[in-house]
Amino acid sequence: MGNTFILLIDCGDRTGLVHNITGVLFRNNLNIISNHEFVDRESERFFMRTEFAGDFQPDKLTAQLRTCLPENVNIRLAPNRKKNIVIMVSREHHCLGDLIMRHEYGRLNASVMAVISNHEHLRPLVEKFGLPYRYITHEKKTRAQHEAEILEAIGAYDPEYIVLAKYMRIFTADFVGRFHNRIINIHHSFLPAFVGANPYRQAFERGVKIIGATAHFVNGSLDEGPIIAQNVIPVDHTHSSEDMMEAGKDVEKIVLARALKLAFEDRIFVNGNKTIIFD
Amino acid sequence: MGNTFILLIDCGDRTGLVHNITGVLFRNNLNIISNHEFVDRESERFFMRTEFAGDFQPDKLTAQLRTCLPENVNIRLAPNRKKNIVIMVSREHHCLGDLIMRHEYGRLNASVMAVISNHEHLRPLVEKFGLPYRYITHEKKTRAQHEAEILEAIGAYDPEYIVLAKYMRIFTADFVGRFHNRIINIHHSFLPAFVGANPYRQAFERGVKIIGATAHFVNGSLDEGPIIAQNVIPVDHTHSSEDMMEAGKDVEKIVLARALKLAFEDRIFVNGNKTIIFD
Amino acid sequence: MGNTFILLIDCGDRTGLVHNITGVLFRNNLNIISNHEFVDRESERFFMRTEFAGDFQPDKLTAQLRTCLPENVNIRLAPNRKKNIVIMVSREHHCLGDLIMRHEYGRLNASVMAVISNHEHLRPLVEKFGLPYRYITHEKKTRAQHEAEILEAIGAYDPEYIVLAKYMRIFTADFVGRFHNRIINIHHSFLPAFVGANPYRQAFERGVKIIGATAHFVNGSLDEGPIIAQNVIPVDHTHSSEDMMEAGKDVEKIVLARALKLAFEDRIFVNGNKTIIFD
Amino acid sequence: MGNTFILLIDCGDRTGLVHNITGVLFRNNLNIISNHEFVDRESERFFMRTEFAGDFQPDKLTAQLRTCLPENVNIRLAPNRKKNIVIMVSREHHCLGDLIMRHEYGRLNASVMAVISNHEHLRPLVEKFGLPYRYITHEKKTRAQHEAEILEAIGAYDPEYIVLAKYMRIFTADFVGRFHNRIINIHHSFLPAFVGANPYRQAFERGVKIIGATAHFVNGSLDEGPIIAQNVIPVDHTHSSEDMMEAGKDVEKIVLARALKLAFEDRIFVNGNKTIIFD
Repeated sequence: MGNTFILLIDCGDRTGLVHNITGVLFRNNLNIISNHEFVDRESERFFMRTEFAGDFQPDKLTAQLRTCLPENVNIRLAPNRKKNIVIMVSREHHCLGDLIMRHEYGRLNASVMAVISNHEHLRPLVEKFGLPYRYITHEKKTRAQHEAEILEAIGAYDPEYIVLAKYMRIFTADFVGRFHNRIINIHHSFLPAFVGANPYRQAFERGVKIIGATAHFVNGSLDEGPIIAQNVIPVDHTHSSEDMMEAGKDVEKIVLARALKLAFEDRIFVNGNKTIIFD
Repeated sequence: MGNTFILLIDCGDRTGLVHNITGVLFRNNLNIISNHEFVDRESERFFMRTEFAGDFQPDKLTAQLRTCLPENVNIRLAPNRKKNIVIMVSREHHCLGDLIMRHEYGRLNASVMAVISNHEHLRPLVEKFGLPYRYITHEKKTRAQHEAEILEAIGAYDPEYIVLAKYMRIFTADFVGRFHNRIINIHHSFLPAFVGANPYRQAFERGVKIIGATAHFVNGSLDEGPIIAQNVIPVDHTHSSEDMMEAGKDVEKIVLARALKLAFEDRIFVNGNKTIIFD
Repeated sequence: MGNTFILLIDCGDRTGLVHNITGVLFRNNLNIISNHEFVDRESERFFMRTEFAGDFQPDKLTAQLRTCLPENVNIRLAPNRKKNIVIMVSREHHCLGDLIMRHEYGRLNASVMAVISNHEHLRPLVEKFGLPYRYITHEKKTRAQHEAEILEAIGAYDPEYIVLAKYMRIFTADFVGRFHNRIINIHHSFLPAFVGANPYRQAFERGVKIIGATAHFVNGSLDEGPIIAQNVIPVDHTHSSEDMMEAGKDVEKIVLARALKLAFEDRIFVNGNKTIIFD
Repeated sequence: MGNTFILLIDCGDRTGLVHNITGVLFRNNLNIISNHEFVDRESERFFMRTEFAGDFQPDKLTAQLRTCLPENVNIRLAPNRKKNIVIMVSREHHCLGDLIMRHEYGRLNASVMAVISNHEHLRPLVEKFGLPYRYITHEKKTRAQHEAEILEAIGAYDPEYIVLAKYMRIFTADFVGRFHNRIINIHHSFLPAFVGANPYRQAFERGVKIIGATAHFVNGSLDEGPIIAQNVIPVDHTHSSEDMMEAGKDVEKIVLARALKLAFEDRIFVNGNKTIIFD
C-alpha cells in the first residue's frame, strides 16, 4: 500500500465536517486516496476514514484538524502498516493454521509476535514456522493467577491486537478492560444464536438449516461484544453435530481472517455495541 | 408430475427395510421414480420417501407393507397432487402477494381455498384474484372467541395446510394442537436468534451483519416448531431497522415459498422437533 | 426521504475535489445527508454521489460547482423522487408480477406508466392493477416496423427508464442508442456465462453447480452491457433444466428488483462497460 | 467411519434394481448404513451408492450382484478408507497450504504421497511438514519430455488421485487420458465464465459483481471437465483485479477442499460431462 496514512475521525455531527477536514488535508498538500463517511442517525455521530499520502507533521496536522472540529472529536492518525499481534489458542488448529499460513506468505497484514496457549497441542505447528510458542497452563491456578501470567507474557510483546483463534477460556472483565476493542474472538455460531458452550450441539438439537460463525470484539460479557463479520453455510438433517462442527471450521477460519483484515487495515469504528466498517 | 404417488414410511431402524419395501412395490408392478432414505442415528429411526407410478389398491398395498415392517411404522400413501390450503395474514402484503402470484399462474402446487385476516387491509389484493377473503377481527373479543371464529371459518374449507403468511397474532396451544404439523409460519429472523416481536429491531440493536428468515411448523411454543427452511442476506451499519425490515421481506417471501414447495410435495418428515427433508 | 436532492458528479481526478464540492454545498447552507466518493485508478476518474437537503436554485448551484471542477465534469442534480418507467415483457409473469406487487404497495420507487408486450398473455394481470397494457405484436412486421411502433408507444409516456422484465426479443443498436443507460434487462444466467438463448438448458448441459441471474444496462450488443446486480443459487444433478428454470425465477425477480432500486435511487454511475454503485 | 465399505453401481435403469441390490446385501447379512439412488432421465441410467458394514468376500458379492443387474453395469466396491494422492502446484501457496494443514491434522481423508512442482517456490512449506517435494522444471524441455518426467515421478507413488492445487500448466490429452476422472483441478473462476488465463483480470474487465471458483475433473479440453463443486463471493467496483485475486483465494481453497472430500469419500459419479454427487 506504499507510504500512506490512515486518518480516523469521529465526532458529533454538524454541517461542514467533510469540507473542513478535507480542507486541512488540501492545504497541507496531502493527497486523498480514499474517503469514507457515515453519520449514525441514532447517535447523531459522524465517522470518517481517510487514506492519504504526502509529507506532514502529525502533531501539527492533528492540531489543525482539532481547530475546525467539535470538542468531542476523536482523531486517530497512523501510517498504514502491519500490526503487531499475539494469537491465543487452545487445542483446535484450523483458525491458527490458516492465520499462520497467511502470515508465512505475507498475507496477514500483521506480525505474529507469539502464540500463547493453555495447551501444548499446537506447539509443533507454531514452531515449524519459527514463531514463539508460550504454554501457560490454567491447571492448578486460580483464574487471577492464570490471567496474571498471560498478562505478563502479552506485556512482553506489546501487541496492538490479541486474536483469540479458538481460545476456549473466558477472561475476566478486568483482563478484557485492559485491551478495549483490541481483543478479537471467533465464536462458532451465528450470534446471537447459540451463545456459550457447544454451539454446534445446540444448532443440531434445534434443527437449524444454516450454521455460521461470528468474529467480534470481546468486552466484559461473553459472546456479546461488537460484531465485525459473520458468515453462514447450509446444513441439513444428514449432518450430525460433529459434521456441523467440521463444516463450520471452514466458515470460522474465513470469517476470522476477514475480520482481521478489516481491523488491521483500520477499517472499523466501534459505535456503542456495534461496528461501522468502511470497506 | 403425471399420475404418480408418494409413499412416506417411518419406523424403527432394522436391516432389510429398503429391500422389503421395494419388494412390495416390485411385486405390485409399481415403477419407482425416486427414492430417498435416511436413518436418524440418535433415535435409530428409519425414514423413506418413494415416488412411484402404476395401478394399485391403496388398502391392499398398505396392508402388504405392514406385514414386512415393524409395528411402530407410520405409512402415508397419497397421490402426488395439489394441496388445499388456507392462508392467514395480518397487514403485510409481501408474502401473500408472492403466494397469490404463484397461485395465479399454477406455480404454488396448491389451491388457495381462502385468505383469512384480522384486518381488512389486504382484501383488495385478494379479491382482484377472485379468492375468498374472510375478515375476522380480534377486536372486542376474547382470544377464545376469536379462535373459535377462525376455527369455524377454516373448518368450512377443510384445508390440508394453514399458511401463516405474516399473521402477527399468537395461537393457543389448543388451536395449534388441532393442526399438528399442518400450520406453517414464516418468522422474520434467523431462528433461534430474535424470537418474538420486532426481530429486525433486535437485529439492528445487536449490530448483526446478516439477517434472515425462518419457515417452520407451528407447535405449542412461540417460534419454536420444527424448522423447514432458512435463508439470510448481508446487512451493514448503513441499514436502519426499517432498511433491514424492507430488505428482509424478499428473504421472507422466498423462504416461505420454498418451505411450502417442500411441504406440498410431501418432502418433509417431522422427527421430534426437527425436520428431515428429502429434496 | 423527505425533500432531498441527489447530486452526481464525475470528472477527471485531481486533488481538492471533495473539499471544493462540499464547500459549494456548505456556503449555500445545504445539509449533506450522505456522501460517497470513488476514484477509478484505471481511468483516473472521480465519482461522487451526495444526498442533501435545503433550498437552492439549481442553475446557480450547478454554475458554482462548475467553476471549481475540471472542464470534463458531468453534473447531474435532481430531486430524490420516484421515476417514471415503462415495463416490457413477453410471456413470463414472475418478474412482472413481482414489480407490480411492489408498485401496488408503493415499494418500487417508480410509477409504472404502462406495460408493453409482444403477447396478450399478461394483459389480465396488468389490468387487474389498473395499469395500461399495450399489445404490440411482432408478427407480420419487419423489425424496423415493430420497433417504430414500440418507440411511438414509449414516446407517449416519456419514461426515464425502460425495464425489460423478461422481454425475449432483441433490439437494434439504433433503438438501444436512443435510451443510453436507461434500458435495464434481466438475463437469466450468471453473465458472462451462457449468453444468448436458453441459458438454463446451457447450464444443465454443462453440469454447473450454481445458476444465477444478471441485471444489466442494455447497449448495442446482446447481454453485454454494464452489469448492475447478480445473484446465484445452488443446483445439483437432480435438477432438470426445467427445475433450474423454475428455481431461477426467484433469483431473477429479486436481482431485477435490486437493480431497479439502485437505479431509481440514482446510485449507479456507468464507467465504460462497468458500473460504480454507491449503496 | 469404522470398518465400512462403499458400493457404487451404475447401469441402465429398469424396475427392481434397488430391491435386487439390497436383497444381495441383506442375504449376505450386510448392514446398510446409508443409501442413495438417482436415475438420470436423459440417459435413463441408474446410479446407486451404498455404504454398508459386515463381513463378506468381495469377488463373491460382486458376482452375486452381477447376476441380478443389467450387463452394462459398473460395480465398484471398496473399503471406506483414505486415498493416496499426489498434489501438483506451481507458485501459489493458498490451496496447497490449506490441504497440507488438513493433512497434518488428519482431516483430508487422504495420504499425501508427494508434492510435485515446476517451481522450487513451495519446497520450504512442504518440507516443514515432512512431505516429499519433487521439483520438475519445464524449462528447456519439450512438453513431451516434461510430461514423461512427471509421469515417472507420479508412477513411483501410484496415487488414486492427482490434485492440481493451482498447477498452472496444461497437460496433453495423452497425459490426461492416463488418469481418467482421477485428476481434480481448481479453476479460479465460476466456469464456464472466464475459461483460460487470468480469469480475475477477465472478471475485472467485464465488471461482474460476483466471482467464483470451480473444482472439476480434468479431461482432454482445458477447463471443460465435469464440475464437482463451485462457490462464489460478491465483489464490487472498489475491487481491483488484484483484490479479486486475493479475495478469490479463500473461495478457491474451500471449493477444492470440498471437492476432494466428495471424491475421497467416493461420493461422485461421472455421467458424461456431468457429475452426480451423493452427499
